Amino acid sequence: MKKFILAENDLPQQWYNILPDLPAPLPPYLNPVTHEPLRPEDLAPLLPQTVIEQEFSQERWIDIPEQVRDIYRMWRPSPLVRADRLEKALDTPAKIYFKYEGVSPAGSHKPNTAIPQVYYNAQEGVRRVTTETGAGQWGSALSFAGSLFGVAVTVYMVRASYHHKPYRRSLMHTWGAEVFPSPTERTQAGRDILAKDPDSPGSLGIAISEAVEDALAHDDTKFALGSAMNHVVLHQTVIGLEAKRQLELAGDYPDVVVGCVGGGSNFSGLVFPFMADRLSGERPETRFVAAEPTACPTLTRGAYTYDYPDTAGLGPLLPMRTVGHGFMPAPIHAGGLRFHGDAPTLCALHDQGYIEARAYDQNEVFAEAVRFARHEGFVMAPESSHALRGAVQEALAAKEAGQERTILFGLSGHGHFDLGAFDAYLAGQLEDYTIPQAQLDEALSQLPKIERI
Amino acid sequence: MKKFILAENDLPQQWYNILPDLPAPLPPYLNPVTHEPLRPEDLAPLLPQTVIEQEFSQERWIDIPEQVRDIYRMWRPSPLVRADRLEKALDTPAKIYFKYEGVSPAGSHKPNTAIPQVYYNAQEGVRRVTTETGAGQWGSALSFAGSLFGVAVTVYMVRASYHHKPYRRSLMHTWGAEVFPSPTERTQAGRDILAKDPDSPGSLGIAISEAVEDALAHDDTKFALGSAMNHVVLHQTVIGLEAKRQLELAGDYPDVVVGCVGGGSNFSGLVFPFMADRLSGERPETRFVAAEPTACPTLTRGAYTYDYPDTAGLGPLLPMRTVGHGFMPAPIHAGGLRFHGDAPTLCALHDQGYIEARAYDQNEVFAEAVRFARHEGFVMAPESSHALRGAVQEALAAKEAGQERTILFGLSGHGHFDLGAFDAYLAGQLEDYTIPQAQLDEALSQLPKIERI
Repeated sequence: MKKFILAENDLPQQWYNILPDLPAPLPPYLNPVTHEPLRPEDLAPLLPQTVIEQEFSQERWIDIPEQVRDIYRMWRPSPLVRADRLEKALDTPAKIYFKYEGVSPAGSHKPNTAIPQVYYNAQEGVRRVTTETGAGQWGSALSFAGSLFGVAVTVYMVRASYHHKPYRRSLMHTWGAEVFPSPTERTQAGRDILAKDPDSPGSLGIAISEAVEDALAHDDTKFALGSAMNHVVLHQTVIGLEAKRQLELAGDYPDVVVGCVGGGSNFSGLVFPFMADRLSGERPETRFVAAEPTACPTLTRGAYTYDYPDTAGLGPLLPMRTVGHGFMPAPIHAGGLRFHGDAPTLCALHDQGYIEARAYDQNEVFAEAVRFARHEGFVMAPESSHALRGAVQEALAAKEAGQERTILFGLSGHGHFDLGAFDAYLAGQLEDYTIPQAQLDEALSQLPKIERI
Repeated sequence: MKKFILAENDLPQQWYNILPDLPAPLPPYLNPVTHEPLRPEDLAPLLPQTVIEQEFSQERWIDIPEQVRDIYRMWRPSPLVRADRLEKALDTPAKIYFKYEGVSPAGSHKPNTAIPQVYYNAQEGVRRVTTETGAGQWGSALSFAGSLFGVAVTVYMVRASYHHKPYRRSLMHTWGAEVFPSPTERTQAGRDILAKDPDSPGSLGIAISEAVEDALAHDDTKFALGSAMNHVVLHQTVIGLEAKRQLELAGDYPDVVVGCVGGGSNFSGLVFPFMADRLSGERPETRFVAAEPTACPTLTRGAYTYDYPDTAGLGPLLPMRTVGHGFMPAPIHAGGLRFHGDAPTLCALHDQGYIEARAYDQNEVFAEAVRFARHEGFVMAPESSHALRGAVQEALAAKEAGQERTILFGLSGHGHFDLGAFDAYLAGQLEDYTIPQAQLDEALSQLPKIERI
């Protein structure tokens, strides 16, 4: 057996919420204005009620609505594959499995949360949702979800990507969304940036500010976030829950789970169902590796403190490891990893030693992606290639140590929208970026002055 | 239940060969020089021995080598999905199923034959295979296959596509193939064309001539064809065999099966396992609909006669319905459907009334693809959209007649490489092309003078 497929009936019926299982309570989110602990009602202008409840819920298991499962079934359960050709190429005693999310209509894991978010909005009569997108994975997933539920979608797309990744934009248009290059003249946040820098290439932080402002200004409109927050991570746990069941079928359990980290929802969605076993003491030895780009080194070089999710400071202050909401990451092709912070739950577990973090340069991750494609067929997204790089390091370490090791990594999306980047890599034209300490210090110096967590 | 997944153990162990079940023997292929019936040994310089045997075999079932099945398992069995949201949108009593081949590493059905073709070449010590490609689906599938078996791949890519579809080229490079824009200066066939027209945009027929000439000129090199011939169709029957088993699980059997036709291997691969039941009298009522573009109307407006598969006339004369090997189809986005002929088996069955053919314009097929994306999520290739259009017509006819109808169509590939075309469609910039009769007559007048079949 090479591929482990679950019957449709094995599609999880509940998401896993890690909040009640954390070793220590998560530090509270803070109101961006008062710096007081955020109350659920503070989020009401932005998010639908059920999503807010999920954000704060202490229930371990939360039902997946049947209408959401019905749509998940379009592509879920997603495949778990044993990468035995890669194992042979590496001549390693390790077993390498990957969970493949590239089979979704949007080509990545993002619809796992886009579908329930739009569903809950539709249930509560919301007519339109706004969002940010960088490289376009999240924006296209939300557009897809909007088309299924008849909810209009407005996407603020980082200007540099809007112009350099036109096909993601075409995908959003095909699903009927409206897409604007951010910063725009449509919002105060956008106008403020453009006044200072008319040629601003934009950033995720700016795009979030614009999407939030747009949602706040319209009664029938809410905002949807693609990563970082608890409810997003919750929805993504469908990945890890399936993977666990599939590995059970394979008679296996991972020694180490590796995922790439942008905002952290893909990583956490894969990891947390396994983390539950470590936290409960059932599997105390399992290791978890977070792979991030050197160009946006939140976990490896950021500060663990409170920061805004957006540039204008409209969103709640989140307890997270951050390189600063004003940090402008270099233009790496793994656009989905260019977020200045990470999911608070992930950051707390990282801070407590449950998660190791490693940062990789673009050239080394593309080298792995090309090797993988030539042995395992699938051409993966640059984001996912970071996880692959981590997995290969684990496999080579196992070989070095002469020991068996079961490795699971998350292949969060296919690379069919990123072939220009592969071209550049093959032509030797990719730059690696190491952030000068002075640039990091400058960005961190602009953090809100709140006592460290 | 919405999606019907087969266990990996249900991956077919044999391909289905329709040759022994045809109502009348297939007219022989002819030697391109002597016009005598082609002998298997005539193909020896071009194809590996096992492939030649398969081309002429009268065995109904042919074993799939275990090494090929092992690679098929990367993405097979592919999903069969009930398009119930589309059914609701059409308000039809019909049931619509689609068999989804977009999950393969290359994003289309093409690897189903690329893998065994390269496997047999590798078994026989061939070091390099050459091929043609239009929009790039076939070239990328063969590159993928080559990378897995360590066989070098040389792709002659229609020049217009080489420049307009750079991402398919990048995909081939990622899998390690070499890709040349055809016509090239590397072959006599290419040089002859360039002498007449230095700006020639190329055509599939020209690219085949170049790939054949390259293979003939090198001892360690063979040629691989992506469609039309019997062995290609044979390999593609894995699609229909799986679909049949999946429909069994669903407790269903199609009243009509619809596929798009370029060279005919995707259509025939889906259809022939069902056709077997019609030919045997077990399911005498099943209908089969071939959907082609108005811009290359082989089945609806071509002649049923002998023609070359390539422009220079190097390949064997095939008994097929053709618009002439010199026909230059308009630049529609469904590049995979721009072949001047069709599989001889398909053409014979069409000629005998077992297959209906319909031709569609680009705008109507893109309109269906967009509607489908907004209800069923998946954004499909323009080629597959022709099959969708046929399926929707059947569903609307069933509604009109107030009758139930079970429709199966082939979704042969995803549209993630074709988003520029969706952009053009949404902007109202797509042209429809109806071929003037004079142009067809001119192309048909250049057919080799052989008594009609």
